Amino acid sequence: MHWQLPIKAEIMQQSTTKQSIIKISHQGNYATDDVLAVEEPLQISLLIGTGENKVSKNISVTMRTPGQDDLLAIGFLFTEGIINSKKDIVQAKQLDVTDNSIQIELAENKLPLLQNLERNFYTTSSCGVCGKTSIDAIRTNCNQYPIANFENKLPIDYFFELPDLLRKQQNVFDNTGSIHAAALFTHSKDLVFLCEDVGRHNALDKLIGKALIEGMLPLSNYTLLLSGRASFELVQKAAMAGIAMIASVGAPSSLAVQLADEFNITLIGFLRDKRFNIYTHPQRILQ
Amino acid sequence: MHWQLPIKAEIMQQSTTKQSIIKISHQGNYATDDVLAVEEPLQISLLIGTGENKVSKNISVTMRTPGQDDLLAIGFLFTEGIINSKKDIVQAKQLDVTDNSIQIELAENKLPLLQNLERNFYTTSSCGVCGKTSIDAIRTNCNQYPIANFENKLPIDYFFELPDLLRKQQNVFDNTGSIHAAALFTHSKDLVFLCEDVGRHNALDKLIGKALIEGMLPLSNYTLLLSGRASFELVQKAAMAGIAMIASVGAPSSLAVQLADEFNITLIGFLRDKRFNIYTHPQRILQ
Repeated sequence: MHWQLPIKAEIMQQSTTKQSIIKISHQGNYATDDVLAVEEPLQISLLIGTGENKVSKNISVTMRTPGQDDLLAIGFLFTEGIINSKKDIVQAKQLDVTDNSIQIELAENKLPLLQNLERNFYTTSSCGVCGKTSIDAIRTNCNQYPIANFENKLPIDYFFELPDLLRKQQNVFDNTGSIHAAALFTHSKDLVFLCEDVGRHNALDKLIGKALIEGMLPLSNYTLLLSGRASFELVQKAAMAGIAMIASVGAPSSLAVQLADEFNITLIGFLRDKRFNIYTHPQRILQ
Repeated sequence: MHWQLPIKAEIMQQSTTKQSIIKISHQGNYATDDVLAVEEPLQISLLIGTGENKVSKNISVTMRTPGQDDLLAIGFLFTEGIINSKKDIVQAKQLDVTDNSIQIELAENKLPLLQNLERNFYTTSSCGVCGKTSIDAIRTNCNQYPIANFENKLPIDYFFELPDLLRKQQNVFDNTGSIHAAALFTHSKDLVFLCEDVGRHNALDKLIGKALIEGMLPLSNYTLLLSGRASFELVQKAAMAGIAMIASVGAPSSLAVQLADEFNITLIGFLRDKRFNIYTHPQRILQ
C-alpha cells in the first residue's frame, strides 16, 4: 500500500470552535467565550475499478468532529465489513482541508462488499434517523477474528488506573465536555492511541482505522477503554477488530452484554472511582 | 383519527432487564444482580394505500428501549418529515408484544413523503453505521412552524430547578444509569411528559410523537429538557416540533448551536448545579 497521510496539520485545529455565550448563575451573569466541539458532516466515498475505468461511489455521510477523517473512513469501511484488510486500500484523498469529504481509493482487485451496507440503513440507538429494511441484517460478520483468552490474567488495579490515564491525554474533552473518547491500552497500561469525536462510534472507527493502517489487527492483546456507555454497536465494532477486553466508564446496554457474551469478549462497565462491574467473561481478570 | 393505543401494559416492564455481574473494588468482590437498560431493534413500517390495495413498506429499524414504540414510530415519521399531522395516521399496530416491529397505518389520502427518507441514509454523529448519498440532504424541512418569542421572559430560577424535577420522575435512569431522557415542561415548571430511551434521538421522537397524538403541536410555549448533550440532530427534531426553548444538561455541538441560532431557538447547555450557559437567543430569558 502506498499510504499517504492526506490530512494536513491544520485540520486538527478544527475540532473545536469558539462561541460567544452568556454564563448564568446566582453569582451574576456575564458574557464570555466557550469552546465547542465541532460537529460537521463528512461524506465518505469509494474510488473503485481499474485503470481508466475508476468510478467514485458515495457510501455514507457521518456527523463527525473533523480530524483523522481518513482513519474514520477506513475504520468505518472495515467495521462495516465493506473492506477486510489494509491491502484493500490504495490511498485516502481529501481534496481540500475545508471540504467535508474523503475518498478512499480501493485496490484494483478489490470488490467492496457493498451488500454489507444494507446493514447501514437502520436507525441506531443513538441517532434515530436512518433506515434499514430488515432486522436480520443488523449484525455484521463479527467473526472476522476468533477471540481467545489471555495467557496472563489482568489484575484489578490495572483497570482502576485507566480512566485517569485517559483523562490526562484527552485534549478536546477538557475544553468542551462534549467529546467521546476511545482509547487503546496495552496490558502494561501504555496508551497506544486515543481518538475523540462527538460521535462515540466515530471515535471507535478512527481507532480501528488507525490500527488497521498500522498493521495491528487483530487487537486481541489490548484493552479498549470507552469514555461513555457501551452499546450493541460499539461492542460489534470492537468484535470486528478482534478486541477481547472492553472497559467502559458508563453503563452497558442489554444487547451490548449479550453480544460480548456471545463473542467471548470481557465487558466491564461503570469503571470509575476505583470500582467496576464485570458483565461478561471474568476469566481474563485476576480477582 | 380512530386512535388505539396498541401497547399493552406489560411491555413497559421490558425496558430493563436483570444481569448477573461481579462487582469489583478494593473492598472486595462479590457476585450480584445489575439492572440493564434494554436495547432491542424496532422495525418501523407503513401501511399505505386504499381499500383492498393496502401495502406494507418497511421504513427503518431503530435500536431502542422497548416501551412507547407507537409514539417512537410516529415521532420519527413526523420529525423526519414523512408525515405532517396526526390526521395522516389511522392507527399503530404492534402485532405481538414480544415482536420488535410496529406498523403505522396511514390515512387513505396520505402519500408519505418518502423522498425525505433519503436524509435517513447517513451516518449520524452518534452511530456511524448508516449511509446517505449527499450532504445537502441532511437538513429536513425544519420550517414547519415559525418559532416566535415568548410574551413573558422566563426567570433564571426556572431553569435551575428543572434537572431536579426531571430526576425525581426518571424511572429507568435511576436503575441503569444508561438511559437518555427528554422531558417537556410548561413555563410553570409542570412536567408534561418524560420519555426515556438508550438512544437520545429515540427519547425525543417518543416525546414529539406523544405531543402529536395529543394535538399539542407546535410546542412553542414549552421547554424541552435533554438529559445529555445537544447535537445537530436533536435541535433539528425540536425545530420540527416548533420548540423555542431547549435546555440540555450536557454540552452542545457547534452545529447544534448554529442550527438553533438560525431557527430562533434558545439553546441552553451545562444546566447543572444552579448554573447554565446560554448559547443562542437570550431574549427569552430574564437576566
